[in-house]
Amino acid sequence: MIAIIEKKKNGQVLSKDEIKEAVMGYVEGSIPDYQMSALLMAIVLKGMNEQEIVDLTDIMIHSGDMLDLSAIAGTKVDKHSTGGIGDKTTLAVLPLVASCGVKCAKMSGRGLGITGGTIDKLESIPGFQTKLTFSDFVNEVNQIGMALTSQTGNLCPADKKIYALRDVTGTTESIPLIASSIMSKKIASGADKIVIDVKVGSGALMKTLEDAKNLAHTMIQIGKKYQKEVICLLTDMEQPLGYAIGNRLEVEEAIKFLKGEEVSKDFYELVLTIATYMVHLGQSIPMEEAKEQVLENLKNGQGYQKFLEFVHAQHGTLYQKERISHKNICATSTGYIRQIHADQLGSIVKELGGGRERVEDQIDYEVGVVLNKKVGDFVQLGEVLMTVYENQKTIDEQRYLNCFEISLEEVETRPIIYEVIG
Amino acid sequence: MIAIIEKKKNGQVLSKDEIKEAVMGYVEGSIPDYQMSALLMAIVLKGMNEQEIVDLTDIMIHSGDMLDLSAIAGTKVDKHSTGGIGDKTTLAVLPLVASCGVKCAKMSGRGLGITGGTIDKLESIPGFQTKLTFSDFVNEVNQIGMALTSQTGNLCPADKKIYALRDVTGTTESIPLIASSIMSKKIASGADKIVIDVKVGSGALMKTLEDAKNLAHTMIQIGKKYQKEVICLLTDMEQPLGYAIGNRLEVEEAIKFLKGEEVSKDFYELVLTIATYMVHLGQSIPMEEAKEQVLENLKNGQGYQKFLEFVHAQHGTLYQKERISHKNICATSTGYIRQIHADQLGSIVKELGGGRERVEDQIDYEVGVVLNKKVGDFVQLGEVLMTVYENQKTIDEQRYLNCFEISLEEVETRPIIYEVIG
Repeated sequence: MIAIIEKKKNGQVLSKDEIKEAVMGYVEGSIPDYQMSALLMAIVLKGMNEQEIVDLTDIMIHSGDMLDLSAIAGTKVDKHSTGGIGDKTTLAVLPLVASCGVKCAKMSGRGLGITGGTIDKLESIPGFQTKLTFSDFVNEVNQIGMALTSQTGNLCPADKKIYALRDVTGTTESIPLIASSIMSKKIASGADKIVIDVKVGSGALMKTLEDAKNLAHTMIQIGKKYQKEVICLLTDMEQPLGYAIGNRLEVEEAIKFLKGEEVSKDFYELVLTIATYMVHLGQSIPMEEAKEQVLENLKNGQGYQKFLEFVHAQHGTLYQKERISHKNICATSTGYIRQIHADQLGSIVKELGGGRERVEDQIDYEVGVVLNKKVGDFVQLGEVLMTVYENQKTIDEQRYLNCFEISLEEVETRPIIYEVIG
Repeated sequence: MIAIIEKKKNGQVLSKDEIKEAVMGYVEGSIPDYQMSALLMAIVLKGMNEQEIVDLTDIMIHSGDMLDLSAIAGTKVDKHSTGGIGDKTTLAVLPLVASCGVKCAKMSGRGLGITGGTIDKLESIPGFQTKLTFSDFVNEVNQIGMALTSQTGNLCPADKKIYALRDVTGTTESIPLIASSIMSKKIASGADKIVIDVKVGSGALMKTLEDAKNLAHTMIQIGKKYQKEVICLLTDMEQPLGYAIGNRLEVEEAIKFLKGEEVSKDFYELVLTIATYMVHLGQSIPMEEAKEQVLENLKNGQGYQKFLEFVHAQHGTLYQKERISHKNICATSTGYIRQIHADQLGSIVKELGGGRERVEDQIDYEVGVVLNKKVGDFVQLGEVLMTVYENQKTIDEQRYLNCFEISLEEVETRPIIYEVIG
């Protein structure tokens, strides 16, 4: 193992056998975490070439089970997001796509750090079951066209163990490591085609468009090796997505969208675009046709009906209880919103109890914030900037205000989609 | 800690507080080894500036005790080698220097990997005590002018713990880490002036003269911060030093030198030069004068007498038993010795039992090899290349032969000292 670490430290290319020795030795416990973390840091700083990334992905895929979704007829399309603040896209996209007849058998993760996880958001719905057996998972997709589970089977244990180590050793920011982690899970979970939302900006793992593009190209290349069509959208994470941040609040925002009520422009556009790409891939039809279907099923309420079926199938009962009490944070000056610091708002919501510091932490599903303004909007002194839902803990008003930057000059609204690759 | 790791990963400069948090947290157990190894790899690949290196050294020095040698009158001069194959220099230098009246209170290490340690070599002498109490250590220096101990007091526990981790995480090759490790121990062990033998070549940690120079300059800078005069010699480690490799065999080679018997040119020159610098520093006299004293005490046997006093003071009795049986390895062609692979010979001697794989391994003091030829020497087909002393284990003759490269063209002898800095 020391020789392998030193090879990568010197910027040399590792063979598949060497990567396997390191990864499987770590999974099996013969290689200690301090050696793996040294290797990970060397990979972060010296990189990996395409072959090494493909090899690493392959080793992680074969470290555990691979889901066999052949019992589900038709093309299975999966969706993934690299994670951001207020990202409840999956909750709105999946029912809409499933209502168009495309099968969505999706596994999701929990939140850690300042970004949330779809599974946590769904667990804010009373009674909702997020851990399905494989047969329940397959049955649900066959019956209603979609299912969403936290995990079923022993998928990519190598990725799981390495991911946890990266999280505590400052080795998260690495395109080879991120690409192989995402793609190993996506490939092992059995979908045929995959749409990936690569977030870019201060609230995301990828801080620059260039890094995001590299990551997208790398993931598309990995997909090709497994005959999986991959489309990547590079989307903005300089401000939170949509208005809501916090588990229940985000589910409610997704419901609003599916009901056809007014939501923020960025969220609306992103959900429609991702859903359209998924229908396009799943049905092998042109984009225009896919978009028509998606819009139709949004307008006629089929998407929302699918959401209700989905919640029912997984034993959830939509919120009966009132929301907890709230307070408004109002602007202390007049002007245009120049910036909304997604990372700071994410941290605040985590502090309120909406996220976890450690894997074992309990989440308070009720807390969070709902923005009333987005970048580019005009705000008057005293007007509401956002509504905050606090429970066990309160945060000083000034910290909320610090998340906003207001300028006298006019500010353009931010685009949500920068580029589509694939 | 993650923020500190990420800062270094991004190539930023760490403050003294940050380095302290990492190092002392690791020593005290609040920071796990997998985080420290990630930070070490980031330091290896991103480096440290002079201030960071001085800060790291200072933190390691103050992580434990500092020896107070004020009970020993006069200037205490220490000597250090960065480690090589067949390096028994200390065993010859110290008695010679002490016989010239310069006080040598030295702590030494054990060997790990393919390079030996002075303490192990001394322990090949029956009865020799290498673990002295601090008062015995001081008394011995006051009585006979020198003492050599494995450890006394709790010196640089931070360095000890980090060094062990570096050894198993491929993070040994780093000038900031090597310089701070050496200098923290040298400064904590209380000498006033220090001569450091920086080995360069395939058998050493520093593979190039440039790296060796950088290391030397860095150590001299650290010394200045503590008002310690440091002189560095950059010396050759492309072939083993002298003829003998193996614990008892090396002690016997040092004895031969001290008795005025013929030894290899490189070893003779290196011992004389280091001894001269130490006497020059210890007595603040010109180099020429120092050299005269050293040569005089070699010729009149005072150096050897001091060695005998030293062995006696530490309860040793020089070898009574015959050496174990030996076999000769003879040249399979005629020509000039172009190369003797120090690292391969080191590995072989370790395998024979002369070194350790793990800290807890027992050493076989009797095994080793004695070269009959050095680079540049002419050898005839069938002539003895070296004599090997095997005990529990035998090694295939071809592996011994592979350590030599013989060329038909004439080969120049290698210089032993490249440069002196300081």
